[in-house]
Amino acid sequence: MKKIAVLMGSDSDLPVIKAAFAILREYGVPFEAHVMSAHRSPEAVQAFASAARERGFGAILAAAGKAAHLAGAVAANTTLPVIGIPVKSSTLDGLDALLATVQMPSGMPVATVAIDGAANAALLAVQMLAVEDDVLATKLAAKRAAMREQIAEKDARLQKELDTL
Amino acid sequence: MKKIAVLMGSDSDLPVIKAAFAILREYGVPFEAHVMSAHRSPEAVQAFASAARERGFGAILAAAGKAAHLAGAVAANTTLPVIGIPVKSSTLDGLDALLATVQMPSGMPVATVAIDGAANAALLAVQMLAVEDDVLATKLAAKRAAMREQIAEKDARLQKELDTL
Amino acid sequence: MKKIAVLMGSDSDLPVIKAAFAILREYGVPFEAHVMSAHRSPEAVQAFASAARERGFGAILAAAGKAAHLAGAVAANTTLPVIGIPVKSSTLDGLDALLATVQMPSGMPVATVAIDGAANAALLAVQMLAVEDDVLATKLAAKRAAMREQIAEKDARLQKELDTL
Amino acid sequence: MKKIAVLMGSDSDLPVIKAAFAILREYGVPFEAHVMSAHRSPEAVQAFASAARERGFGAILAAAGKAAHLAGAVAANTTLPVIGIPVKSSTLDGLDALLATVQMPSGMPVATVAIDGAANAALLAVQMLAVEDDVLATKLAAKRAAMREQIAEKDARLQKELDTL
Amino acid sequence: MKKIAVLMGSDSDLPVIKAAFAILREYGVPFEAHVMSAHRSPEAVQAFASAARERGFGAILAAAGKAAHLAGAVAANTTLPVIGIPVKSSTLDGLDALLATVQMPSGMPVATVAIDGAANAALLAVQMLAVEDDVLATKLAAKRAAMREQIAEKDARLQKELDTL
Amino acid sequence: MKKIAVLMGSDSDLPVIKAAFAILREYGVPFEAHVMSAHRSPEAVQAFASAARERGFGAILAAAGKAAHLAGAVAANTTLPVIGIPVKSSTLDGLDALLATVQMPSGMPVATVAIDGAANAALLAVQMLAVEDDVLATKLAAKRAAMREQIAEKDARLQKELDTL
Amino acid sequence: MKKIAVLMGSDSDLPVIKAAFAILREYGVPFEAHVMSAHRSPEAVQAFASAARERGFGAILAAAGKAAHLAGAVAANTTLPVIGIPVKSSTLDGLDALLATVQMPSGMPVATVAIDGAANAALLAVQMLAVEDDVLATKLAAKRAAMREQIAEKDARLQKELDTL
Amino acid sequence: MKKIAVLMGSDSDLPVIKAAFAILREYGVPFEAHVMSAHRSPEAVQAFASAARERGFGAILAAAGKAAHLAGAVAANTTLPVIGIPVKSSTLDGLDALLATVQMPSGMPVATVAIDGAANAALLAVQMLAVEDDVLATKLAAKRAAMREQIAEKDARLQKELDTL
Repeated sequence: MKKIAVLMGSDSDLPVIKAAFAILREYGVPFEAHVMSAHRSPEAVQAFASAARERGFGAILAAAGKAAHLAGAVAANTTLPVIGIPVKSSTLDGLDALLATVQMPSGMPVATVAIDGAANAALLAVQMLAVEDDVLATKLAAKRAAMREQIAEKDARLQKELDTL
Repeated sequence: MKKIAVLMGSDSDLPVIKAAFAILREYGVPFEAHVMSAHRSPEAVQAFASAARERGFGAILAAAGKAAHLAGAVAANTTLPVIGIPVKSSTLDGLDALLATVQMPSGMPVATVAIDGAANAALLAVQMLAVEDDVLATKLAAKRAAMREQIAEKDARLQKELDTL
Repeated sequence: MKKIAVLMGSDSDLPVIKAAFAILREYGVPFEAHVMSAHRSPEAVQAFASAARERGFGAILAAAGKAAHLAGAVAANTTLPVIGIPVKSSTLDGLDALLATVQMPSGMPVATVAIDGAANAALLAVQMLAVEDDVLATKLAAKRAAMREQIAEKDARLQKELDTL
Repeated sequence: MKKIAVLMGSDSDLPVIKAAFAILREYGVPFEAHVMSAHRSPEAVQAFASAARERGFGAILAAAGKAAHLAGAVAANTTLPVIGIPVKSSTLDGLDALLATVQMPSGMPVATVAIDGAANAALLAVQMLAVEDDVLATKLAAKRAAMREQIAEKDARLQKELDTL
Repeated sequence: MKKIAVLMGSDSDLPVIKAAFAILREYGVPFEAHVMSAHRSPEAVQAFASAARERGFGAILAAAGKAAHLAGAVAANTTLPVIGIPVKSSTLDGLDALLATVQMPSGMPVATVAIDGAANAALLAVQMLAVEDDVLATKLAAKRAAMREQIAEKDARLQKELDTL
Repeated sequence: MKKIAVLMGSDSDLPVIKAAFAILREYGVPFEAHVMSAHRSPEAVQAFASAARERGFGAILAAAGKAAHLAGAVAANTTLPVIGIPVKSSTLDGLDALLATVQMPSGMPVATVAIDGAANAALLAVQMLAVEDDVLATKLAAKRAAMREQIAEKDARLQKELDTL
Repeated sequence: MKKIAVLMGSDSDLPVIKAAFAILREYGVPFEAHVMSAHRSPEAVQAFASAARERGFGAILAAAGKAAHLAGAVAANTTLPVIGIPVKSSTLDGLDALLATVQMPSGMPVATVAIDGAANAALLAVQMLAVEDDVLATKLAAKRAAMREQIAEKDARLQKELDTL
Repeated sequence: MKKIAVLMGSDSDLPVIKAAFAILREYGVPFEAHVMSAHRSPEAVQAFASAARERGFGAILAAAGKAAHLAGAVAANTTLPVIGIPVKSSTLDGLDALLATVQMPSGMPVATVAIDGAANAALLAVQMLAVEDDVLATKLAAKRAAMREQIAEKDARLQKELDTL
């Protein structure tokens, strides 16, 4: 199975990013995680991204805040699918990171998820692998069924508690 | 090779969307395109999305404007990767479509590209297929090299014209 | 009397939504409340919405956050009036949910209230029923008179306390 | 049948508003239309709104731009459902009118539709009347079916033209 | 001397508004303060505004949050200068109240101050009165001089503490 | 009667600003107009503002776009009421000028009107003068009555044309 | 004298960027201009930025639109001052480029100017060089005096034309 | 070596601004810091800015919140490079200060850094001085190398802790 890379611009993003680790482990998808920065360690980013396909990665997650360039810098150095996670910082409520991640120029897509959406970014990577991997596809379908069930259970609980609300 | 689906909420989105057709043809990736709407033909969307994996699709592009629900509605009915294209309409400069596409809840990712970014959406789909397809991967790499060359040519032209600007 | 449905995309929205329950009880309007999600349980949404008119509902409230599709997904499956409640989440201060709820395409209205405006959503539903129900209309008018009185009382209290402020 | 009122803050809003007339005529719903302004003719607004229930109206549409107060001013003087249409003006792309219309305080709902969404506002009024009017309900359902068909036709046309796009 | 009116849409705005009382007392300007709402007690607003000139008021401050209509509703019923104070509420960080207050249509100005800017609103009223009142004008000039001095003192303190910062 | 000053940061603002001249002439209020810039001619601004009270001005209008500092720079040099007109420029739709004009710090109010709201700015100045000038007050009231009439006429015309719309 | 570099992400930015050329020529500052892209030719950007100090550059201007990464990518590869010019593109009115340029993380400043502010970017570069270059400093001061004069002339012209406006 | 000036509109900005002091001390760059306000002490600002070049300053940092005019007011009175620091205040999340600082008119650049970006503002000033100062340039390069190392160390730590996250 291809590996997934989870890159983050700063280790201060870990509280947001670790939701991605949980998803990848849940699906049994091998991954590497690295702290590297489009601005503070651009050579590391370039080196990692350029070699990623050869090293067996199937997608690269990149999380960054503010003028979030990490996903774009990775995309510039690989043709693997790059998934951008805009991280909310102390001003502008994540809007800066969202626009800096999603508004990529023609020829350089970044698959952007919601602000602080690390879990969804990992899930998107799993979905990509699952296109050619029936075992993963089956797990994804099972998870969807479980979700539906969960919602039904929550609805059932609401019916019981409704009079007290 | 897996097929790509290109869905649009309205045929008025075609001037934006057809850039996706061009990319898919350039890479020789088979695709279907359909007009279907999360709101006006929800059963069609559900039917298409539910059957997409079985019918040999590897990713689904969904383009919509305003309260752009199409990509999310597709994502709710398949575990294939869904790529959302927010389309700018007559008010709010595309911000509504961007937020309605990208801010998906946990468990339901939509890989969102820039507003009106149909070409990038198609390219992202090609990148997904290329993870397991070396021919596509080679074409993508060649295109990147061509891009670099184009930029270099544009720079060369600028050097010639600089005195006149 | 027609019933009102109160749907929410997640039970985490309950702290906001229960203000709707209070209003409906105050006016003696029968209602059902359900947790169901446009994305996690789309069939449940479709089934509920499609059958709602037949089952005696007169309006459907739908509350959701982020890329808030629930109200639109309900509207796509019924011609009953649908009232959308955008719910503020951890980023973007509710703007995403507001735009994703209100900017519906032509042919599919969603009656949108303020961000986190569950009480007003319920009141709007009561107003709809009151068009043909004189008892409800009288209660609404009485409540307005009470509001005016409350404001007058608050003003009177301000006059007493003004010197201390 | 109840009548619908269509109020607009300025006759310069007519190009946007007349889409509401078309919908109301299509469904055979009687309506009055008036130019009146929350700021320039507040007594007219108050007089109209206060008497609207008695005069047989079932809902009031109110369209205004910029610091759009008309819908709120109507809502303050009636307990009929009020439907607000934010109108885009020359600055801020309609965001001012949207927020000034939808962010109503508790106790005073305005059912807000999309910016420039006059057709949807009228349709919402029809939906309200249709709750107790089976003929209207049947027409609404038929229109939905027609919409689905239209989308299907547009999709069919796309299939024919796809090679040329 | 003319009196100043300080109106607020809700007594929950008092923590913000009382800064206006302090300014008016500082300058010895007589004022009345009232809780009245454009939506919950529109007749009170109309009655107050219509009679304000006759009753000896020289300007009216109006503070409200969300779809802040109070200042506009006052302006519609008087030709006295109306000063609008947009109040920040729990969503959108005050942007809704700012736009709903400042974006008034032609013919109906509202003199808008910063979000939560009650002190400045009061000061603006004092400035208006001071145009024809030399005692007030002298006080305003003295306050400006005091401000300059305060800044100079703060700068002096900074020089002392700079090494410890 | 006090004079009104109309300052603009650039003569390119004249198409927007001249609406203020029309209002001031309509009310017979004497005024001066000047091009001066907070950034390009700060001494001129300071000199004008500092002397304005002495020279018989009763209020100062200041129009500027982008990082609109003119109104604030005037306010910093006079205690006369300063009325700010944010002017829309080629980017950001006037939002930059609005925020740069209205969000003044405590102690330095600027009475801000709508983006491009030059007519309202002039009217606000007239309203300030009218507090102590019964002739102006009567003219303002007459204009309001005329406005009401105009709206009524427009409504009457709508009634005639409604069938053709 | 140090040279200035003017980099642009695309030659489509030339209509905006060439205002920088005019300023640099006006001050007699030598410059190079290049088309290079953070995403399409990242090695070129890295190579240019890394060598820029050695090659005698004193500042680097970088213009880009949308998710504007060029200035940040340059800044990551040099410690020369980098001046970012956010370029407005077809959606979001330049806000995306502004935030992606200015919101740089700690340790990596980009000196950002207004959206489409190429002339000011060049002027800022001249100001930097002028800190140690008295001839340039004198020219800058002369230009400021000329500006003041221009404004005064425009004001004089306004006085002549005022009656006709 | 030229000195750097650090100006702030209010001493309440000190918690944000003192990050600039730390950077300047780290690089051994002499600086002065002052509290002065574009609005409350405009003469102090003008006097300081006008004399700054003569007094040996090489750049001026100016920090202010809300309608942040300080940087622009400094720029209007000197041709030294001015670096603007938008400071976040209690409403609008810093967007007002950002736009009021960065959107300067042609001819008057302000080098703007991120909201609350005082450290980067100081670093930018150091970079400007380092253009002609090899010792500073070497320190900047060393700091960059240290940054790269830090990131590498953080990455190494992540590898150790990854299993526990």
